[in-house]
Amino acid sequence: MDLNSYLKEKENIINKALDSLLPKEDEFPQKLHKAMRYSVFAGGKRIRPILCLASAEIFEGVSNNIINVACAIEMVHTYSLIHDDLPAIDNDDLRRGIPTNHKVFGEAMAILAGDALLTKAFQIISQKSEGRVGFAHHQPSTLLQIVYEIAEAAGSTGMVGGQVVDIESEGKEVAFPLLEYIHIHKTGELILASCRAGAIMANGDDKSLDAVTKYGEAIGLAFQITDDLLDIEGNREETGKAVGGDVKKGKATYPSVLGIDESKKRAQELAGIAVASLNDFGRKAEPLREIARYLVKRRR
Amino acid sequence: MDLNSYLKEKENIINKALDSLLPKEDEFPQKLHKAMRYSVFAGGKRIRPILCLASAEIFEGVSNNIINVACAIEMVHTYSLIHDDLPAIDNDDLRRGIPTNHKVFGEAMAILAGDALLTKAFQIISQKSEGRVGFAHHQPSTLLQIVYEIAEAAGSTGMVGGQVVDIESEGKEVAFPLLEYIHIHKTGELILASCRAGAIMANGDDKSLDAVTKYGEAIGLAFQITDDLLDIEGNREETGKAVGGDVKKGKATYPSVLGIDESKKRAQELAGIAVASLNDFGRKAEPLREIARYLVKRRR
Repeated sequence: MDLNSYLKEKENIINKALDSLLPKEDEFPQKLHKAMRYSVFAGGKRIRPILCLASAEIFEGVSNNIINVACAIEMVHTYSLIHDDLPAIDNDDLRRGIPTNHKVFGEAMAILAGDALLTKAFQIISQKSEGRVGFAHHQPSTLLQIVYEIAEAAGSTGMVGGQVVDIESEGKEVAFPLLEYIHIHKTGELILASCRAGAIMANGDDKSLDAVTKYGEAIGLAFQITDDLLDIEGNREETGKAVGGDVKKGKATYPSVLGIDESKKRAQELAGIAVASLNDFGRKAEPLREIARYLVKRRR
Repeated sequence: MDLNSYLKEKENIINKALDSLLPKEDEFPQKLHKAMRYSVFAGGKRIRPILCLASAEIFEGVSNNIINVACAIEMVHTYSLIHDDLPAIDNDDLRRGIPTNHKVFGEAMAILAGDALLTKAFQIISQKSEGRVGFAHHQPSTLLQIVYEIAEAAGSTGMVGGQVVDIESEGKEVAFPLLEYIHIHKTGELILASCRAGAIMANGDDKSLDAVTKYGEAIGLAFQITDDLLDIEGNREETGKAVGGDVKKGKATYPSVLGIDESKKRAQELAGIAVASLNDFGRKAEPLREIARYLVKRRR
């Protein structure tokens, strides 16, 4: 399969849906909606929503409801970036090659735009939707489970928890178990939830869901290890952010704890585990397999 | 009826439930969970969750699920206070007589504790609950509607939108329609959602829900007008925050636009509208009526 055209096709679907789901820039209060849209359309790779759609494709395929859920996850991801970049947290001026939200709209607006995106995500999952494509209406119980899984993945024992420990560990010697905690929670949980959400929405059975869960856990961690490596070996033109930021901030990273070679080996191993976990699925899982291989060799 | 003992009884129910729903202080990451609990247990009046329970009591009464929803709303309210108090937004050092979250835990933790509380709210509404009391299991579709209504009330065209316009209007001459927009959105929407959530969870019919909606709209606005008045006429011992803060910040308030007497008159009128909207209900709506009267004469 041609992964690049697959990713491009899904990216277009996601971007179009995000555009229609978010309040327009001329809707009051305009500055808030501009700030929300600015970061959502700031050139993200859409990895999480694409994983959601690719996971759904193993089973019943993609419906409008699933696209909505995928977009909701991207909004949660975007909110987390806006808040992480704030002066009080990571204090980053540049993200994906352009100024961060608070550099353009000010701190107050960035905080509130993040809040509004997180809130919007749950509104979208729970809203009544029309014009479903592909297959029957989703049960409210399924959508409620999605709300639960995303909230759990994003909350104090998930993504936010990982972010807190990440900040608290800055400048400190961090042992491997704590490093793994940070990576699994800060990044892994929402990637895992993206994969699971697609499979749950497309009515994957329990055994299949276990396989997708193994896949999601492996690539979630592999993704963050690769991010760590890009912060050392990447270049600013490709990654769109200042390189070496982790070292400067004294962040706990895989390369800083395990070394560069061992980190690369670990990322490759995890991609292998991810691919192997999909052995029971046929051709329909090929996009997920290709994405796993791509995620550990990407340059941005 | 004795409103004080009613409020006290409900407050105890809410506090107990909040304590069991929130992660414990010794759960990892401890500092985050301490920060979340600090603001949730910082002496709030629990008006929103009490309104939720009182609205449910008109119909089928209160169940564990409804208490969970009431607590979720209080978490949304608490997150909004933590973020509003931040240096980049209202820059308040004192809330309910004690230091604000960021003064105790630092800005980064306050931002993330707010994020985690908002996220937790949606997790609680969507979680599977056991040991229900009072009446049958709630339909997932009902809970999904609650997720939707709270998200809508709290989002960019609700509470966050109101907060944005409030900030943008600081130090400016504000016409009455914009002032009303700020108050209805910043404060009114979540109070309205609290009332509606209780009625929806307790299976109120459409006509009754309309009446509760009228009630919620009226007291939501009356509540914020009274807040504005307390900022002028209250005292620090009773309100637990510095008095005169609105004037100092150049905030758009009812007294600054309409004058003190007219604002008082308007708050009383709204309380009257709220009480009148419950005419079709009998004794079971008495707590809601009493709360409306109380909200415009409270001293904190």
